[in-house]
Amino acid sequence: MIIKEDFVRNVVQPRPLKSHKGTFGRVLLVGGCSPYGGAIIMAAVACVSSGAGLVTVATDQNNISALHSHLPEAMAFALTDRERLVQELLRADVVLIGPGLGEEFLAQQSFELVMTKALSRQTLIIDGSALNLLAQKRDMDLQAKKLILTPHQKEWERLSGLTIKEQTPEQNQAALADFPPQTVLVAKSHRTVIYGPNGQIGELTVGGPYQATGGMGDTLAGMIAGFAAQFSVSSFTAAAAATYLHSAIADELSQTAYVVLPTRISQELPQAMKKLSAKAGS
Amino acid sequence: MIIKEDFVRNVVQPRPLKSHKGTFGRVLLVGGCSPYGGAIIMAAVACVSSGAGLVTVATDQNNISALHSHLPEAMAFALTDRERLVQELLRADVVLIGPGLGEEFLAQQSFELVMTKALSRQTLIIDGSALNLLAQKRDMDLQAKKLILTPHQKEWERLSGLTIKEQTPEQNQAALADFPPQTVLVAKSHRTVIYGPNGQIGELTVGGPYQATGGMGDTLAGMIAGFAAQFSVSSFTAAAAATYLHSAIADELSQTAYVVLPTRISQELPQAMKKLSAKAGS
Amino acid sequence: MIIKEDFVRNVVQPRPLKSHKGTFGRVLLVGGCSPYGGAIIMAAVACVSSGAGLVTVATDQNNISALHSHLPEAMAFALTDRERLVQELLRADVVLIGPGLGEEFLAQQSFELVMTKALSRQTLIIDGSALNLLAQKRDMDLQAKKLILTPHQKEWERLSGLTIKEQTPEQNQAALADFPPQTVLVAKSHRTVIYGPNGQIGELTVGGPYQATGGMGDTLAGMIAGFAAQFSVSSFTAAAAATYLHSAIADELSQTAYVVLPTRISQELPQAMKKLSAKAGS
Amino acid sequence: MIIKEDFVRNVVQPRPLKSHKGTFGRVLLVGGCSPYGGAIIMAAVACVSSGAGLVTVATDQNNISALHSHLPEAMAFALTDRERLVQELLRADVVLIGPGLGEEFLAQQSFELVMTKALSRQTLIIDGSALNLLAQKRDMDLQAKKLILTPHQKEWERLSGLTIKEQTPEQNQAALADFPPQTVLVAKSHRTVIYGPNGQIGELTVGGPYQATGGMGDTLAGMIAGFAAQFSVSSFTAAAAATYLHSAIADELSQTAYVVLPTRISQELPQAMKKLSAKAGS
Repeated sequence: MIIKEDFVRNVVQPRPLKSHKGTFGRVLLVGGCSPYGGAIIMAAVACVSSGAGLVTVATDQNNISALHSHLPEAMAFALTDRERLVQELLRADVVLIGPGLGEEFLAQQSFELVMTKALSRQTLIIDGSALNLLAQKRDMDLQAKKLILTPHQKEWERLSGLTIKEQTPEQNQAALADFPPQTVLVAKSHRTVIYGPNGQIGELTVGGPYQATGGMGDTLAGMIAGFAAQFSVSSFTAAAAATYLHSAIADELSQTAYVVLPTRISQELPQAMKKLSAKAGS
Repeated sequence: MIIKEDFVRNVVQPRPLKSHKGTFGRVLLVGGCSPYGGAIIMAAVACVSSGAGLVTVATDQNNISALHSHLPEAMAFALTDRERLVQELLRADVVLIGPGLGEEFLAQQSFELVMTKALSRQTLIIDGSALNLLAQKRDMDLQAKKLILTPHQKEWERLSGLTIKEQTPEQNQAALADFPPQTVLVAKSHRTVIYGPNGQIGELTVGGPYQATGGMGDTLAGMIAGFAAQFSVSSFTAAAAATYLHSAIADELSQTAYVVLPTRISQELPQAMKKLSAKAGS
Repeated sequence: MIIKEDFVRNVVQPRPLKSHKGTFGRVLLVGGCSPYGGAIIMAAVACVSSGAGLVTVATDQNNISALHSHLPEAMAFALTDRERLVQELLRADVVLIGPGLGEEFLAQQSFELVMTKALSRQTLIIDGSALNLLAQKRDMDLQAKKLILTPHQKEWERLSGLTIKEQTPEQNQAALADFPPQTVLVAKSHRTVIYGPNGQIGELTVGGPYQATGGMGDTLAGMIAGFAAQFSVSSFTAAAAATYLHSAIADELSQTAYVVLPTRISQELPQAMKKLSAKAGS
Repeated sequence: MIIKEDFVRNVVQPRPLKSHKGTFGRVLLVGGCSPYGGAIIMAAVACVSSGAGLVTVATDQNNISALHSHLPEAMAFALTDRERLVQELLRADVVLIGPGLGEEFLAQQSFELVMTKALSRQTLIIDGSALNLLAQKRDMDLQAKKLILTPHQKEWERLSGLTIKEQTPEQNQAALADFPPQTVLVAKSHRTVIYGPNGQIGELTVGGPYQATGGMGDTLAGMIAGFAAQFSVSSFTAAAAATYLHSAIADELSQTAYVVLPTRISQELPQAMKKLSAKAGS
């Protein structure tokens, strides 16, 4: 299936009048360890801008000031505070782990804690270095987890064992069988493909090389988290809609920009989503 | 009474020519403890943007850099500096306590200090976690305090004992009798209602679900503080006018934005207030 | 004399083609101690935006991150580093001391160091709390200093001994005789007046109550420093031109803004100065 | 040869459709020590905005928060972490050392490490204080390094021994012979000239005194790094194209700005490069 604008229009509906912050979900983002502090900032900006109700960031203590400079709208605490991490984890509807997490000791520890404690009702998005940590722990018990994986080709190779050449739609779909039944795969490349648990395959015809800049993946992951938190749709639909919109906005911006900075995409999100929702009823 | 634009136009009058910073009030904002540093930043941005003369923020030492990144216009000191807290408290015309204050030891201590030392000439706005702290200390002597309370439904439940279902206009009005005689209640919900000490009830017909995002309440509290500081009107009138304008700006922005970020509202404040004041004389 | 646009047009001339950073002066700004970190940030933003060649800020170590968030164009070091302070002081063409300096021990120490070491070729602008420190040290030997004083009425009272009522043009002019012969006074009030060493009096007919917000004075002081650094005119002319432009920009912005934030004035500076210089030749 | 727009159009080509971050190069920037933290921030903003694929900054630990406030897109680590410095150095395609590096002990140490370990396949851009450090170490073995030097006149005097008066095209070209065979010289003055290893001389007819502000050189160095990283052209061509575009954007902005702040140039980069690439095919 080619994901087009009408697919996203069915997702980004006008909001119910009687609603409050809780209606649009509580998201926990985990990452941003040195030297990758900016990654979780970009994910958080995307998540808030896409309309998540309440966003909390667990990151390096030294990263919180820059995060708040961009985004006072998010809450933030030090990743070393395990007690709070568990507490926030249990309250979240959606957890995104990985943007700028790194693979050092604190990253590993946090990853294991999140993977162990995540609840079956939660959507758990695994991105960036958390995918490598997962590849190292393929014996971990993941059953009853609702996963969205967002690897680029090299990360997917580590995770699935498929070399980049072997990453055909058929092989990717087959490899998904090694993950919990509800798992969604966002296989990022110059033409990203989304695989769903019931054999769905979503392809994009938008996106291009103006997106080839550091932070694009972090922004996409934040958007997927925001969509999963607020829209009552399947993980596949949330991920496909977010991925489409991410690239569609970049496409639009690339009409006047040689390179599209990730934070520019997030800036456009409220306007782009409004346009879609205005057409939703029509 | 439905609060409409003409109500606000009577408040946001052209400024007197002979005036200086002091003319427009001195505000002290207290809050922004980890993990809620951004909350007091949003309140302060709203307070300065709405035209308060001099704004000082008492917050977590680690939060000051991000605050100044947004707002060099505000002064800021560490909430742990009790001596300065007392000193600034005594100089203030308006005190706002609560946005991102939390309920930990330093928060409790600061709350008690503010509640004990606040002067009868001051407007004291209690928001966010400070409302929960107040609920735990209902035996506190509040007489002679000029309070504005800004709870959402759950906070009002804790404070008034009224379940959310019981929070009808009649019951809310009745519950106000348990507070000092001049108390104003801004009962936030998807349709916020403002209750005054003389039985006034202000209702809004603006505002909507695009406001359901973290930080909206902090921004509103900052605006109420700014209005109370600079306009010679009753607490009810200041709170009602600020609440109306907050939602009216969000309404306007929502024409082109799916979700309205709180800081966007503050950005629009000077322009929106100018339009109102230009019409004031007409 | 009423300072009007043509006065400023004679100052803001097109730049010489053969020039480099040094051509437009080296400015040292001293201030921004807790809780006033934002003050020196606003002064520095104004100074750089007005076209000073090289701007260095001596401030609280904790304030440097927020300063650089606004202004990577400025250099910055901790005010506690006395050795560097002396070194930068001796290299500067213009020194501005006072925005957010405070009156605590480090402030006093820095003030005395600057007043003692400042060279006769330098323009020394004394603003904010540095004016109070000067009032406490009226026995200091100031001869051979080229001073610009920028007090508001209360600060001028402390410095001159004149009560606010007594601050008439005649009395202000007379009081200037107690300062070194080249001293310029920018007497700030709702209608600021600039007094020169040869009996010049510059009056403004621009400016208004939309400027009555914290940080306006810091921004003005930064602009005066920037003008004194780059234009080959007298201190009186630099101060009068900067003061006019500061108010003229605020006037223009106030057409669409109820309150004009100081940082907005600095944003407009390059455009406003370009317009003036384009008319300069005509 | 006069460098004109068509020269740059041949460089800034439309991007290949099949590409990823790695396609556009990995850049390591080294600098930003106190009091010059802002310098490396401006270089990094320019480098990312010009389209480099992955940008990592080695700087003062205290500078990382402000860097991320401007640019979450870059990675950053403390310059004191030598192990990581070596690791990132070996992975880089382009290394820029110097903006705000200073000449203190850590700067010297880092400079020597970079000069010793840099690989022959890497483009090594030496700017700012690193040029002075190089002047002090003219006995260093530089053979097999691919250097781009970006001195202003005084720095070039220290490096080449040529007084400013002696810096004629002929003498500059001759002095280049003392450097490794592939070295490119960007001799900055009010009319910058670029010298290539095969006798090429690139002259500019754009640029002007509105660029005479702190940080212009840092921005140019970041752009050269970005161009060298992503375009498959010679160092001379990358440097000349970046230098032209830097001045051309400043020229354009100067139509409405008396002084052009360096960060404004970086903001315009994606748009300006898009315009060039759109014309590239025509």
